[in-house]
Amino acid sequence: MAAVAFVGLGVMGGPMAGHLARAGHTVTVYNRTTPKAVAWVDANGGQPAASPRLAAEGADAVFLCVGRDDDVRSVVLGPDGVLAAMRRGSVLVDHTTASADLARELATTCHAHGVGFVDAPVSGGQAGAVNGALTVMCGGAQDHFDVVAPIIDAYAKACTLMGPAGSGQLTKMVNQLAIAGIVQGLSEAMHFAARAGLDVDQVIDVIGKGAAQSWQLDNRGRTMWRGEFDFGFAAEWMRKDLEICLDEARRNGAQLPLAALVDQLYAQVIARGGARWDTSSLIHLLDNP
Amino acid sequence: MAAVAFVGLGVMGGPMAGHLARAGHTVTVYNRTTPKAVAWVDANGGQPAASPRLAAEGADAVFLCVGRDDDVRSVVLGPDGVLAAMRRGSVLVDHTTASADLARELATTCHAHGVGFVDAPVSGGQAGAVNGALTVMCGGAQDHFDVVAPIIDAYAKACTLMGPAGSGQLTKMVNQLAIAGIVQGLSEAMHFAARAGLDVDQVIDVIGKGAAQSWQLDNRGRTMWRGEFDFGFAAEWMRKDLEICLDEARRNGAQLPLAALVDQLYAQVIARGGARWDTSSLIHLLDNP
Repeated sequence: MAAVAFVGLGVMGGPMAGHLARAGHTVTVYNRTTPKAVAWVDANGGQPAASPRLAAEGADAVFLCVGRDDDVRSVVLGPDGVLAAMRRGSVLVDHTTASADLARELATTCHAHGVGFVDAPVSGGQAGAVNGALTVMCGGAQDHFDVVAPIIDAYAKACTLMGPAGSGQLTKMVNQLAIAGIVQGLSEAMHFAARAGLDVDQVIDVIGKGAAQSWQLDNRGRTMWRGEFDFGFAAEWMRKDLEICLDEARRNGAQLPLAALVDQLYAQVIARGGARWDTSSLIHLLDNP
Repeated sequence: MAAVAFVGLGVMGGPMAGHLARAGHTVTVYNRTTPKAVAWVDANGGQPAASPRLAAEGADAVFLCVGRDDDVRSVVLGPDGVLAAMRRGSVLVDHTTASADLARELATTCHAHGVGFVDAPVSGGQAGAVNGALTVMCGGAQDHFDVVAPIIDAYAKACTLMGPAGSGQLTKMVNQLAIAGIVQGLSEAMHFAARAGLDVDQVIDVIGKGAAQSWQLDNRGRTMWRGEFDFGFAAEWMRKDLEICLDEARRNGAQLPLAALVDQLYAQVIARGGARWDTSSLIHLLDNP
């Protein structure tokens, strides 16, 4: 069992850190809003820390799950950041979906401190975090991965090293690009089905057996055409992820016409008050023009 | 066992009619190009006819699987069309993917002749036709459906009545709209993955476990990023189907911004000589700008 720190106890990080505590690791937590850290300790044991730096003191591995690139920079590189306290030979794992450039930058900085770094964005959503069934996409060196993979197993159904630092983030971007197309296509399909007067539930049963099948159809088809969006992965986070994809594509030269369109459509969803609505809320724009 | 006619022995109709013969039905076939009908009879038994009308003489049910609305009109309503020969109480089944308007028109015309009509487009592709595992989406009256569903079972894994005449076509349109989004999203995702220097096969394994999973990812992900398109469902047929969707949407008021974009992208694929390439060939435009 390891001494670990976990920074960021949101809808993802909270249950992930909980799995670490239940697996027998000694867990020290930090959260920007203190009451959330106190509530987490009440529920899971472990101990709260007053800063990321204090949380990381003496840890074998430090895990982050925060919001954006700047949040990661702050909790890692700031005066009270984890890197100021991490010992040589320990490993920093960033579960935040962030840019590949940030991952490469942090890997270099950590290396200079004798600290390992693994970028490790996840997919599987809140349900995957709660059930310990996340897919974890990692970038980094094999020896650093080998240290943290057995710990990550507490909340992962799959944890894969995809290549050097940044490769986890790039893989997550591929995932989000695929989802962007599926969700807009499915939105148009469900919107059309309702307009055509079909029994949409029956349509979902039938088309889900063939080449139109997708996880999104199976798990979001029924809710989206009923306009139920108060759950799942928020439109504002999906938009952040698409921004990362589009930024990276400016560098690697990939053409992403559909992702660029869907990014703008999420801007509309958010402008209508749907920042916290599930990713499937793209259909709202079609049903309510 | 029934006496049936089958008009249109293409990559779909040929194997479908073959399943009818193997199920023990008496099958009379017609194909626009005679050698194909002769070859089919050599392989499957049954007998060829010199016109759709002659094929339909004495049949309990007549099946069509041709190209476009005008082809259907010709083989049904023309002077040598099936309707001139179909007896009262027999049922016409159209497996062509065609407009819902045509289905409604044919249902009315057939009704005036005392003939039943079921629009019954399929999904599952050539492999589904060969293996007798098609999904069949039907529109029509329950009593007509009940006559033909046991016959269709010879090549279907599912055969469902979706509503009145036209409902089969509308359901197929929903299917194609969902696929259009999935394929473009997946094209951008695979294109981005290769540009990012990732091991694309490994990426497919990893993202296929979560919310980005789709039949298209599982069955086309690996071939598409390698640029293999000489199989599957042709771009020119997908474009025909999207035209039907976009036409119908002008009537029912559905908004289909992504389908309209993908329709134009298929126009580009076709302009580059890819009319017969698989639907997944959208990635060719990104990889070869």
